[in-house]
Amino acid sequence: VDGDGKRSRPTAAVVARTAQVSRVAVSRAFNPDASIRPEKRAHILRVAQQLNYTPDMAARSMATGRSHLVALIVPDLSSPWEAQEVDAMTAALQDAGFATLVFRTRDDFSFDEKLLTYMKGFNPDSVISYAENVRPGHLARGVTRAVPVYVCYPEADPGTTADGGYLFDRLDVRMRAAFEAAIARMQAAGARRFALLSGKAASLATAARAQLVRSLLAARGLPPPDEIAGDYSYDTAARAVLAYVRAGGRADAIVSANDVGACGAVDALRHGLGLRVPQDVQVLGFDDIRMAHWQSYDLTTLQIDVAERTAALMRLVRRRLDEPAAGPLTETIAARLVVRGTA
Amino acid sequence: VDGDGKRSRPTAAVVARTAQVSRVAVSRAFNPDASIRPEKRAHILRVAQQLNYTPDMAARSMATGRSHLVALIVPDLSSPWEAQEVDAMTAALQDAGFATLVFRTRDDFSFDEKLLTYMKGFNPDSVISYAENVRPGHLARGVTRAVPVYVCYPEADPGTTADGGYLFDRLDVRMRAAFEAAIARMQAAGARRFALLSGKAASLATAARAQLVRSLLAARGLPPPDEIAGDYSYDTAARAVLAYVRAGGRADAIVSANDVGACGAVDALRHGLGLRVPQDVQVLGFDDIRMAHWQSYDLTTLQIDVAERTAALMRLVRRRLDEPAAGPLTETIAARLVVRGTA
Repeated sequence: VDGDGKRSRPTAAVVARTAQVSRVAVSRAFNPDASIRPEKRAHILRVAQQLNYTPDMAARSMATGRSHLVALIVPDLSSPWEAQEVDAMTAALQDAGFATLVFRTRDDFSFDEKLLTYMKGFNPDSVISYAENVRPGHLARGVTRAVPVYVCYPEADPGTTADGGYLFDRLDVRMRAAFEAAIARMQAAGARRFALLSGKAASLATAARAQLVRSLLAARGLPPPDEIAGDYSYDTAARAVLAYVRAGGRADAIVSANDVGACGAVDALRHGLGLRVPQDVQVLGFDDIRMAHWQSYDLTTLQIDVAERTAALMRLVRRRLDEPAAGPLTETIAARLVVRGTA
Repeated sequence: VDGDGKRSRPTAAVVARTAQVSRVAVSRAFNPDASIRPEKRAHILRVAQQLNYTPDMAARSMATGRSHLVALIVPDLSSPWEAQEVDAMTAALQDAGFATLVFRTRDDFSFDEKLLTYMKGFNPDSVISYAENVRPGHLARGVTRAVPVYVCYPEADPGTTADGGYLFDRLDVRMRAAFEAAIARMQAAGARRFALLSGKAASLATAARAQLVRSLLAARGLPPPDEIAGDYSYDTAARAVLAYVRAGGRADAIVSANDVGACGAVDALRHGLGLRVPQDVQVLGFDDIRMAHWQSYDLTTLQIDVAERTAALMRLVRRRLDEPAAGPLTETIAARLVVRGTA
């Protein structure tokens, strides 16, 4: 079947002749990084489509050493924040001529050798790790050519970057100013006793957020926060907040590691405990997922702008492909406070 | 860089010698379809990992005509239902030794030639189209080898299958029995005047659901439903339901084309109009996304079981790869009613 398919394929020369352009122009039309007038590219792609021509990516990958694949490593694509992220990245990568390979890490955050073996086989041009547990050292064994991109929290430094000197590029997410604004606002509205609703125990993002909040509370002369153990899910958050209050927990402000957990907290407080949000307990989320603005929640939260984050990641991908031998590359974005009804 | 990378790679023979197994065993260990004892495979993969060996997928794809890539075409990965679907499919494909390529169609549902050109270049083993607007005829030009898989609604037949006799495999989703149970229940609870809150106008899934509901209402002697134009989003649904009631719409039961829209309807009724759900207006969703069970919504809905759907799609992928020349393959699943608090 494959042999037949190959024989029946027209060549780039046929496309060039039919479109009345040069062979070089055909090659450029299929190379998203090449400079060519948009109308000319559209014309050539149209002719190629009519002739059923397409450059074989496998052959091209072997010839050029570029696979035009970008791998995203995610722990759980079904969580709203990751889904919004991967959706935006897929659209941006596609516009830039890359296809998106999605790899899902195990639920238990354990290291998956098979995943890396496969990833290496596909030889992606770039690897973006949203999964904090796949350390740069592991990825360095898993990909021979791509320099991985990691999301880091330099203000909290919970250890993202400590991994034996392997080269990786980083998207630094600054959160201090946004947390400072949120905590000042919650304190001004009467909050004195804070609780931290965490994400997964192994999560560096959770650790970074918790460390920042603790230091900001201390700086304001407020007592250290109570700890409520969540796992980023709605169900665990709702159960944990219910248990916390029933066991005598008296926080008047809950800072959640993510929005989904904050929604669970809001529902547990209102529907499970008959408390008012924000009058009795204020709740702060993190992410600004779409559900955060749904009227039943109307969640005050810290937003990472998806478009801004996607643009920064795309800059890292392009800069690294332009300069494969460059030292570590960094882009920086900042969270911002979005005030709605819960804090 | 690529040349250096290639030269430094150990061969399968080196892996075989080090692991004290045959060359054939090494090949089998990297072929998820091959029969080999799990402990033996684990041993070989471990040795391969230590030696930094991996079979190059591009080379292997050219040799075998198998790319070990499965393409998913989605219109909007950030919607909760699609995210849950793609997450489950990615996990299942990965377990079966396939990597998942995600392609995102344009927001306006227009046909994207560039997408198909790229897809063809990557030569996927299978293509699953969740995007109804990419017709089998288009995909047949876009993929030379893979037979596309489509989701169909045979009970409503809104035209999914009419596309000039191109070969495709299908996942048939049966919805009649679940809608029948839901409508009977809503009528028993007092509903007399129904409204349909639609998804995107061009969506065949919406058309199929609407056609089924209309015929079921007629069969029960109920008047034809009012039409409220949504687009699957929360914001549009909330605005449309608000406008419908303010313009004098008096439905006592709203059947939404999806859960996200149903959440918008519930919030518009409760927070925008001061109506009680389900006492004044009942609301039925579709999908059973995770947010459907969040306490603020507690949505009665029709569920497509993600695990069941994923298993059926995986059977289609495997059956087609086993029998490339077979006629159209079909798997069937059914929606079921999940009764919660809104109907």
